[in-house]
Amino acid sequence: MSRFYSRNTRELVPYVPGEQPKDKKFIKLNTNENPYPPSPLVMERIRNFNLEDLRLYPNSEGAVVKQAVAKYYGISKDEVFVGNGSDEVLAFIFKAFFDDTEKIGFPDITYSFYPVYSALFNVPYIRVPVRSDFSIDISQYPEDLKGIIFANPNAPTGLYIATYKIEELLKNRPNTLVIVDEAYIDFGGESCAGLISRYDNLIVVQTLSKSRSLAGLRVGFAMGCKELMDGLVRVKDSFNSYPLDRIAQIAAEAALIDTEYFNETRQRIIKTRQWTQEKLLSLGVKTTDSKANFLFVKIPGISGPEALSFLRQEGILVRNFNSPGICDWLRITIGIQEEMEELVEKIKKIIAG
Amino acid sequence: MSRFYSRNTRELVPYVPGEQPKDKKFIKLNTNENPYPPSPLVMERIRNFNLEDLRLYPNSEGAVVKQAVAKYYGISKDEVFVGNGSDEVLAFIFKAFFDDTEKIGFPDITYSFYPVYSALFNVPYIRVPVRSDFSIDISQYPEDLKGIIFANPNAPTGLYIATYKIEELLKNRPNTLVIVDEAYIDFGGESCAGLISRYDNLIVVQTLSKSRSLAGLRVGFAMGCKELMDGLVRVKDSFNSYPLDRIAQIAAEAALIDTEYFNETRQRIIKTRQWTQEKLLSLGVKTTDSKANFLFVKIPGISGPEALSFLRQEGILVRNFNSPGICDWLRITIGIQEEMEELVEKIKKIIAG
Repeated sequence: MSRFYSRNTRELVPYVPGEQPKDKKFIKLNTNENPYPPSPLVMERIRNFNLEDLRLYPNSEGAVVKQAVAKYYGISKDEVFVGNGSDEVLAFIFKAFFDDTEKIGFPDITYSFYPVYSALFNVPYIRVPVRSDFSIDISQYPEDLKGIIFANPNAPTGLYIATYKIEELLKNRPNTLVIVDEAYIDFGGESCAGLISRYDNLIVVQTLSKSRSLAGLRVGFAMGCKELMDGLVRVKDSFNSYPLDRIAQIAAEAALIDTEYFNETRQRIIKTRQWTQEKLLSLGVKTTDSKANFLFVKIPGISGPEALSFLRQEGILVRNFNSPGICDWLRITIGIQEEMEELVEKIKKIIAG
Repeated sequence: MSRFYSRNTRELVPYVPGEQPKDKKFIKLNTNENPYPPSPLVMERIRNFNLEDLRLYPNSEGAVVKQAVAKYYGISKDEVFVGNGSDEVLAFIFKAFFDDTEKIGFPDITYSFYPVYSALFNVPYIRVPVRSDFSIDISQYPEDLKGIIFANPNAPTGLYIATYKIEELLKNRPNTLVIVDEAYIDFGGESCAGLISRYDNLIVVQTLSKSRSLAGLRVGFAMGCKELMDGLVRVKDSFNSYPLDRIAQIAAEAALIDTEYFNETRQRIIKTRQWTQEKLLSLGVKTTDSKANFLFVKIPGISGPEALSFLRQEGILVRNFNSPGICDWLRITIGIQEEMEELVEKIKKIIAG
């Protein structure tokens, strides 16, 4: 540790993402990537891009992406903010709307980056316990929170909260900023994007990494009233004028335009999830009612780390979280049908002992 | 302004980059872009990239870029940190090494993003006046500063400090973190990269936006001892696991490998700068001894904003800074020879009145 570290840096405990193996031998079900390639329109746009233009700075606000999001959701482009992956967008949200004076609350089981952002920007936070079935209990969140953030569907449980319930929350707590992280919304949930014009205390965050098959390009966005988006722009323009490169911008635009491919691939993933879940249930494996591109499962008679290690030896990467209450559960990304058939066979082996 | 803005966000005054015109009619000499396209190797690597891989997350640390930087400068890859443009790298430096307890110092005339980062992360700062010839006077920096940052060559003056002078500073102030922003170093200066193995109080920052013709791809990097780079990794991993996309990584690697093209294009820019400077001097225009890919000039008999406005009407974009002492100066990026000939003609027109 260098003597030059700031006080804050000395104490940081960064987020640790799932492993990215360097060889390709594994069936990779550990980081919720999409098993299908990006839309053919994305590839076409990139191939036709004039690479000489890379000498010039990109548009600083990601205008074509903002426009495409606005069109997809029927909102104004002033109600959209674009960033270098939804992780950057979330970081900007913590910085723009929170400081050391008021608390943010989130479920004790949710995306584990939220406490990391809080620590990075000195935001006090409370973790509110989920119910024993992992569902989020909004009534348990103190009234004096400045903000509440959760993933919907939640990570790593996959559990989904209906929009009417989120609307109740927005109505009941007009002075609480509610941030709904919809990284997995396209696999079975309904987005809250339709609510942003009516509630100035709502921010919806999405990513193109999962349902749009663009994890490798780093594009995420937020939606909310213009005043909230302006706050994000202030922070972004004090941090990095040009977070999105030229190729990412045209590729993201194309991914948002090609709704046919998007709908076809997400439906396929939903179908494979349903097939996998039925198989696992029939084997006595516990699962939650996931609306995401992953299943959250507990295999009887084996600990989480042991199951992870066994599957790794068998050539399948999955994810396990070292947190109280879920350490015996695995988060398993939905791959293509053949990959899930292989997974089911390996889990059969575990259960057979 | 939303009632949800944090205290800090309410007060932010973001950095304003040079204009990116939407039509292409202008001769664009306002944002220090390279007039030459990226290396042919960059284009080849992007064309051969398997676009299906975009469904997968990129390498989180930009390993191939780190490796290429390390090789180019003959250092270890642990002494390199890669980010989404050098602006992001600089932001991480402010966050990783500074807080509200100790001051950072920088010249009163330098890259105007430094006070913005300071404000974003609540770092107290002092601006130390440059001499009347715009040169940086290190002896004026108080001894108790935790850090000193400046661009070398400096922006927007283009003035260069020799490495032996920076080494003296490093030696004399072992408890001051010295950050040398070498965005423009490849156009006539010598990098301080060779000093990082001997001084644990030095960070050197570079970008691929200028001399590598990749402004549109957003890649920058820092070099320093492993402990300092680890501090940046802590912050980065608490902010965004994957700041560099897959295409940016392979393109940046290629740009760093193709030293022949790099040397050829930067020499051409240096030659054009010298030609332009001689022409302007012969017209009675004041210039500094710029070692960057821009000239800093003062046209007699006209204010800075007026000159900027005249040139804009004539189809040429340049940059003017609304700061005391330099408001009558223009920063003019070096374009191709023909563009600079056109510029000289227009400046002749101004002088002729």
